[in-house]
Parts: sequence; structure tokens; C-alpha cells
Amino acid sequence: MKTVLAIAAVAASAGAQAQSSVTVAGVADAAIRQVSNDGVGTDRSLASGGNATSRLIVRGTEDLGDGLSAAFWLEHGLALDTGTPAQATQFWDRRSTVSLASKSLGEIRAGRDFVPSYSNWSRYDPFAYVGVGSSSNLVSASPTGPIRGAFGSNPNTTVRASNSVQWLMPSGWGGLEGGVMVAAGEGGLAANGQHKVVGARVGYAAAGWGVSAAHSRTTNDLTADDAFTDSAVGANAGFGVVRVSAAWRRFRQLDATQTNLLLGAWVPMGSGEWKLSWTRANLSGQVGGTSIDDNDASQIALGYVYNLSKRSALYGTLSRITNSGAATYVVPGGPKGLAGGDSSRGIEAGLRHSF
Amino acid sequence: MKTVLAIAAVAASAGAQAQSSVTVAGVADAAIRQVSNDGVGTDRSLASGGNATSRLIVRGTEDLGDGLSAAFWLEHGLALDTGTPAQATQFWDRRSTVSLASKSLGEIRAGRDFVPSYSNWSRYDPFAYVGVGSSSNLVSASPTGPIRGAFGSNPNTTVRASNSVQWLMPSGWGGLEGGVMVAAGEGGLAANGQHKVVGARVGYAAAGWGVSAAHSRTTNDLTADDAFTDSAVGANAGFGVVRVSAAWRRFRQLDATQTNLLLGAWVPMGSGEWKLSWTRANLSGQVGGTSIDDNDASQIALGYVYNLSKRSALYGTLSRITNSGAATYVVPGGPKGLAGGDSSRGIEAGLRHSF
Amino acid sequence: MKTVLAIAAVAASAGAQAQSSVTVAGVADAAIRQVSNDGVGTDRSLASGGNATSRLIVRGTEDLGDGLSAAFWLEHGLALDTGTPAQATQFWDRRSTVSLASKSLGEIRAGRDFVPSYSNWSRYDPFAYVGVGSSSNLVSASPTGPIRGAFGSNPNTTVRASNSVQWLMPSGWGGLEGGVMVAAGEGGLAANGQHKVVGARVGYAAAGWGVSAAHSRTTNDLTADDAFTDSAVGANAGFGVVRVSAAWRRFRQLDATQTNLLLGAWVPMGSGEWKLSWTRANLSGQVGGTSIDDNDASQIALGYVYNLSKRSALYGTLSRITNSGAATYVVPGGPKGLAGGDSSRGIEAGLRHSF
Repeated sequence: MKTVLAIAAVAASAGAQAQSSVTVAGVADAAIRQVSNDGVGTDRSLASGGNATSRLIVRGTEDLGDGLSAAFWLEHGLALDTGTPAQATQFWDRRSTVSLASKSLGEIRAGRDFVPSYSNWSRYDPFAYVGVGSSSNLVSASPTGPIRGAFGSNPNTTVRASNSVQWLMPSGWGGLEGGVMVAAGEGGLAANGQHKVVGARVGYAAAGWGVSAAHSRTTNDLTADDAFTDSAVGANAGFGVVRVSAAWRRFRQLDATQTNLLLGAWVPMGSGEWKLSWTRANLSGQVGGTSIDDNDASQIALGYVYNLSKRSALYGTLSRITNSGAATYVVPGGPKGLAGGDSSRGIEAGLRHSF
Repeated sequence: MKTVLAIAAVAASAGAQAQSSVTVAGVADAAIRQVSNDGVGTDRSLASGGNATSRLIVRGTEDLGDGLSAAFWLEHGLALDTGTPAQATQFWDRRSTVSLASKSLGEIRAGRDFVPSYSNWSRYDPFAYVGVGSSSNLVSASPTGPIRGAFGSNPNTTVRASNSVQWLMPSGWGGLEGGVMVAAGEGGLAANGQHKVVGARVGYAAAGWGVSAAHSRTTNDLTADDAFTDSAVGANAGFGVVRVSAAWRRFRQLDATQTNLLLGAWVPMGSGEWKLSWTRANLSGQVGGTSIDDNDASQIALGYVYNLSKRSALYGTLSRITNSGAATYVVPGGPKGLAGGDSSRGIEAGLRHSF
Repeated sequence: MKTVLAIAAVAASAGAQAQSSVTVAGVADAAIRQVSNDGVGTDRSLASGGNATSRLIVRGTEDLGDGLSAAFWLEHGLALDTGTPAQATQFWDRRSTVSLASKSLGEIRAGRDFVPSYSNWSRYDPFAYVGVGSSSNLVSASPTGPIRGAFGSNPNTTVRASNSVQWLMPSGWGGLEGGVMVAAGEGGLAANGQHKVVGARVGYAAAGWGVSAAHSRTTNDLTADDAFTDSAVGANAGFGVVRVSAAWRRFRQLDATQTNLLLGAWVPMGSGEWKLSWTRANLSGQVGGTSIDDNDASQIALGYVYNLSKRSALYGTLSRITNSGAATYVVPGGPKGLAGGDSSRGIEAGLRHSF
């Protein structure tokens, strides 16, 4: 049951005034982290968001009657360790949307939000794409592959897209879920994160299992010669209290391909839960004439989350990345300068509080 | 009736603690927009704030007894399509004020707020200075005129001023309203928006009609040789359910003059309202030795707002700008490169949700 | 009694949902200020935070049972006169923490917060380190001394530290209070405010008096050859309604020393309180081969705070800085160019509203 207490309601500029429900929510999460890179050294740090990204959310829903509702969502990501916005110039970088929803026909949502293929990957990662065990350590940290070919060092669309309009299926379509996204390129600059995106996701959730697939296609005439495609397929299943997942995701642009694999498990124990994952990134082809075939790596991660309450938890996570060939993937937070093929290890212990 | 529910009250640094009322409010508004510029082409985009500027407001009032009250207002403007602050380095760019008000003597308000002549113009614009039909498309998009002469490309005072102190008339002075503003230049840089401003506004509102006038004078020794003056006069009247408006606003600096005219109408129909406007910008004189006489343009706009509730609405707007001479005014959101004298057309359909 | 009304509760990413208490609080404070620098001139301005720094706070506490609680605190500093964040790129610059507290064992707090030696100084300053009478006019405005030697013009640790973990004593240890802080250097850049800090504070508070001491040590291999140390001792006592304070604080790095002295008094009268302070900064030694022995100054300040309520107040403050030798300390807000040894005077009148 969601708890949403009424805060305030003034139709600021529209002249209308009525009761509303605004929810202020978020996550505050900090961890002590130690990362060791073979042949380089060890760094200790306070890290933000080892279990869930630290964030501040302002959102609300209005019941319009007849099964219709209007809603908005503003979500700001921040580094709790330093008080720094994830992106000062894009403060509401995590989500900024307005939407109109029908219980029978689904939701039309406009603004900045996750792309379908990201939503289809992160749900299968036991570490939810954050912390020393995050699959992002391999997936998004691969600027030597098709991501660099398509976007250079500019913002990319492997997680979110701005200027998008989505249709999302309503709940209650017999276990079906998913949606379609179109984002306008606006004739803008890739450097500003303005890309044209078309994507879709469809899933089926049954009692003890689920499966889903998604595909997103980004075109960006300014830096890429061809479309960047992002395909993802995943499944999960429960065996008693244990839940397992498997996922596959492939990025492609011109001759470059990055294939990501993920196996995950959640094992409840005591007041908490063990989490395990194995992630693999396999690159092939070339970017700008340079072969990326050798840039492969694997990561194993183990974590335990001890729930102090439904909202607060202590957690600890271990991870190790094994690079092959020239690959230099690292757990975030360590010293720079890892040599190709060397490994990286991370450990963190933290406190996550959802509000 | 304004609805303000109590949220919290801690006199954070002052050591005092008492019950308060903090209101979190705002607007989320996004529209699909298409803008065509003759001889150039067409761009489609997701736009923020076609009906009302997307924003987040934190504000509150404390009743001090004896007809006195204290209040604060922080208002942040944002682009909902991308999650981007209107100004990251001036986050609370729309308003940041603290005030002390008396029911009989009026309000003293300090901080950043609208200048009197802006307040006297925007109220007569059926499109409230936003969207493809906004009068701002001509009024503020005229950097070839006195605005450029006075401010260059730096922040100007045609909408708001920082470092201001205002006195605002109380309600209940027999239909009179208005106030006086003084903003300190602080010996600062025009590039930082630090201008010395003196302005006043006075209006009279009767049962079916109203009239008002305002004048603001900005001095800025660093970039302008002379004062920039901004004068505005307007009136509105109701005929049955139909309301019409007319307004005039003139910017002047040295030899340059920009005269803006506006005719507006609001026509309720069904669950919503038609809106019509005609805007004209007429430039004369010269800036930096260059004549600006030919830089004139007109805009016509037509829109319909369909109210889903008092707080949420669907809307659609059409507009067309006709340039004469060398003028290149455009509806925002189109491709660059309009030739002098060519026209620009915009259309948008969106969802506005006030919270 | 603290008033905290429930707003909302959604464990956003953790999947858990339960009732919460989020508090939105803060301070809105603006003053008309005039600062005269001898031999230079006078500037008038609207200033933010003459009595208390303008800020916005989002915070909350969750009762975990058994005397345990979890909490978070996000605090944003802003200039109310212009709507500008104190630091846009470090929006939550005043505080961003998550913590776990036990009634018997104290609190573990992680994130960005005050360093112990700052907390041990500001509490003895009647002007709370803000406004024309603030002791910061001498203490933190001394970049010619050890602060510059250690940090250059980069962020320093005389007020806050990022990446810190603290243990804070619980209340109820027989009048004892204080804590220990460790902040990770993270192998980072001093330019980004990444410093390694170790500090502690201990105080004893009795019925009519209190005494406390603190020491913080910052190491920063990138810009400083040696540690920067910050030691503070203070005491306060009440005589009837009058309260007085005395404090000493010393910064040291290599051959440079800055010794700060403070005498303060609070005298209730009518609906308000008089505040008096005398501050002295004494520099000795050298920075980069240049002697700083002559860079000494004293400040006297007198203020009155008239309480409109527990949350709102009108205030007025006068201050005068007397420089000796080559010192050029000034009250903030005046024109630039004070010659060494000349004096600076400030006066302000403002409104502070806590929400």
C-alpha cells in the first residue's frame, strides 16, 4: 500500500486551486568503500548509494474520475557523501515527467525517463545497477565499444532519454506489461543529450516467474554514422524463497558489438537477504578502425542486506572484476592506472534509508 | 480558496520551534510542438511549459496576529522535457522572497521578483507569456532593439529583478492595487544581472473591467550609456462570459524604441476556453549606429484549453509570426536560419498539471 | 518541542513502503545593508542571511524501536536576494547526511557536515557566523594566513568536510557532549574539496555554564606540505538573563599561525535581545616566504533582534573592523580597494523568517 499524504494544492499559474497530494520522498545511502586495483594500490572513500542511488523525489497524482488520473514526477540524483547533484545542469536528471493515465488504456507519459531496454536489464540485476557489485561496472563503463562509437564521451541513451513520449500498458492485462517510447531529436546536439530514440518493451509476469524483452534504437546524425541499437532479454523465477534471474543485453553500432550477460540470485536469510551476481561484457568488432575484440571482462559480486525496517537497511557487498586481454574495467572508487588484463576488487559497508 | 496544509516547522538556526505551514506546489507541463520556418524547414520537439511554465514552489505564511503575517516564497523554473533547471546557477530564478504583510498597510517584500511593468503586461496576454502563442515571442525576443542596447546579451530586467525591495498595496483599498519596487545595483556587474531598478505599478479593478499602468527604470552604468525605461498600460473588460484585453508596452534606451501592442480574448466554451491574441512589436531608432526601423513583426495566436479538472488540462495552440523588413522573429523550437521578412508558424498540443 | 508532521513515505527503489516523516524546513532572511570602506566609498545592497543563512532543509527520522532510529538531512544554502544557490555544483552544500542513532550509544553519521572545531567556535559567536557582525569577517576571510598556505583558494575545512563519518555522543551522558569525525581524502583533488580530516570535540554543559574544546587536523598532500590544524576552546556562562561567551581558535600550517579571539554577550530586552561581540584575528609567521605578522585586525559588533514570533524577527546590526599594519579585512558588501590599515563599517536591517 502506498502512503501519500496530502501536502498542498495551489494551481500556481493556472488560476485554479484545489486539494492535491504532493509526495516528498527519496533515498539517503552512504557506504564506506575500499577498492584495490592490482598493481596500482588501494583507495578508501565514503561512497553515495551503495544499495540504492541517493535521491530526492517530488511527485503526485490527481484522480480525475472515470478511471483517469494525472500525475507528475520530479527526481533528483545526488551524491550524499559530498552534497553534490549528480548533474547540476540537469538537476532532475533521474526523471521529470507529466502523465495522463487510464485504468483501462494505460498511461501517456512525457518528459525524461528510463529507456525501455534499460528497464528491461536493471530489474534482473540483484544490485540494481548501483554499488561495487553493480552490473554497470561492465555495462555502462565500456566507452571503448559501441557506446563510444555512437556517443563519444557525450551523454548516451543506455539508461535514460530526454524529450520522450511513452505509452505504458495498464496493469491488469493478464500479466502483460511494457510500453513504447519515442524521443525527439529536436535537431539538437548530441553533446546536450539530444538523441532521437524509438523503443519498446514487453513482458509477461506469472505467479512464480516472468520474462521480458526490449529494444531501443537511437539515431544521432551528429556523431554517429549509423543507429545505436540496444536489445535486452531477461527472465526470472522463484524456487521457494530463492529467486534467480538471467539477462542478455547487446549494444551495436556499425561494426562494434558489446554483449552483456547477467546471472543473479536473491536468497532471503534472517532479517535480510543474500544477493549474488555474475556479469560478463564481451566486445567484438572495431571502433574507428581499432579492434575491441580483446576488451572483455567478468564480475562476480556477493552482498547481504540486513533490514532494520522496511525503509532502512545495513548492507555489505564484495565484488571482483577479472579483465582479459586489454580490458581495464574497474570497480568505481579505486586508484587510476590499472593495466590491461589486471583485476579490481571492491568491498563496501553502508546504510540505506528510504524516506 | 487556497488550500495550505501544515507540513513542518522548525526554526532551524534561530533556536525557536513552532508549528508552521510549508506548501510544496508547482506546475508540470509538456507539449508536442512543431515549428515551421519559411524557407528553412520544420522541427518537432517535446517542449516544456506550453500552457504554464513548469516549476517547483516552496512557500509558506505565518500569522503573526494583529493583521500581520510573515511569508517566504522560493520558486524554481525547470524544463520538464529534459529535467533541466531554467538556470542552474540561479536555481530559484522565478522568485525568492521574504516578506512582512499588514492587512491594512500592505506588504514589504524583499528578494527576487517580477518587475512592475512585466506584471502589468503578462496579465493581459491570454497565453500568459508562454508557449507558441506567447507575446514573449516578439516582446522579449527583440535583442536587436533597446534591450540589446541596454543589456547586450546579459540578463535584463524586462521580467524580473534581483536585490529588490517592494511595497505592495493591501487588498481592500477600494479596487486599487499595485506597488513600488526598488532594486539595488550593488556596484555589481550587468553580466550577473545586477541592475539598479526603480518601478511602480497602479491598477484599478471594478466588477467587469480593470485598468492599470506601470513604469520601470533600469540604470546600468557598465553596459548602458543611459537608462532603460519600460512603460506599460493595459485594460481588460468582460462582456458576458467573454473577456477581452488590450495592452501597450514600450522599451526605450538612448535612440532606440520598441513598442509592443497586444489584443487578447478569452471565450469559454464547453469544459474549456478559447484564447486569441494579436501581438505587434514595432522597433524604431538605432542601436550602435545601426537602424532598427525595419525590425517589425506581428503574431496571431489561437488556442483551446480543455479542463480535465481545476488543476489539469489538455491544450492546443496555433500561432503565426509575420515579419516585415529585416525582422526575423520566430516561434521557439524551429530550425535556425530564417531570412528577414519570412514567416514562422508553430503548433503544439500538451498536458498541464498544477500541483 | 519539535514539530514534525508526516508527509510521505515511499521506499522508492527498495521496494518497501511504509509511513514516514519528512520535514521541509528552512530560513528566508534578507537585509538592507550599507558598507563603508575608508578611503574607498560606500555600497548599498540587499543581502541574504544577515541573522541566519537562508536555506532549505529536507530531513526526516524513522523510529526503529529499541531506542534506535535512522535519519537523513539534506540542507541547501541559498542567496535569497538573487535566488542563487550558495553552490550550484554542490547544491546540498550545508549538509547531506544519513545516520543511525542509539539513545544509549550515540549516533553514527555519514556524509557532509560541520567539522568539530567549527561547531566549537560558532556556538560562542552571538552573530552565529553570519551578517555584518559575523566573526567570519575575520576568521574565514584570512586567505593571507595558514588557510591560504594549506588550501590556496580551494575549498577548505574550516567550516565543513565532505566524505566524513562521525560518532556523536548521545544526550544524557551527565552533561557531556561532542564527537569524533574522520573524513576520507579519497586520493582526490584539493580543488574539489577532498581532504583527509580527523577531528574531535568534547564539551560539558552545566545548569548556568558550559565549556568545550575541539581539534581538527586536515592533511592534503596535493597543495600543502604539512597538516593544517584547527584548535578551538570556548566557554559560556549566564548571569541572570545575560549570557556571555569567550572563545579561542587557532589555525596552523607550517610556519603560519592565525589566532582568533572572541568575546560575546546576549542581553534580553523587551521582545528581543541585544547582541555584542568583539573578534580579533592575529596572524604570525609566514606563507610562501612572505611574513604575515602585520595582518591583524579587530571587529566590534552590536545588534538587536526583535522577535515578531518564535519563528520571525526583525533585526539590526552595526559593525566596525579596525585593521592594523597591512591588514585589509572588510565587512562584506562594500566597494573593493581598501588600503592596508584602513577600517571598514557595516550596518544592516532585515527580516528573518524560519519555516
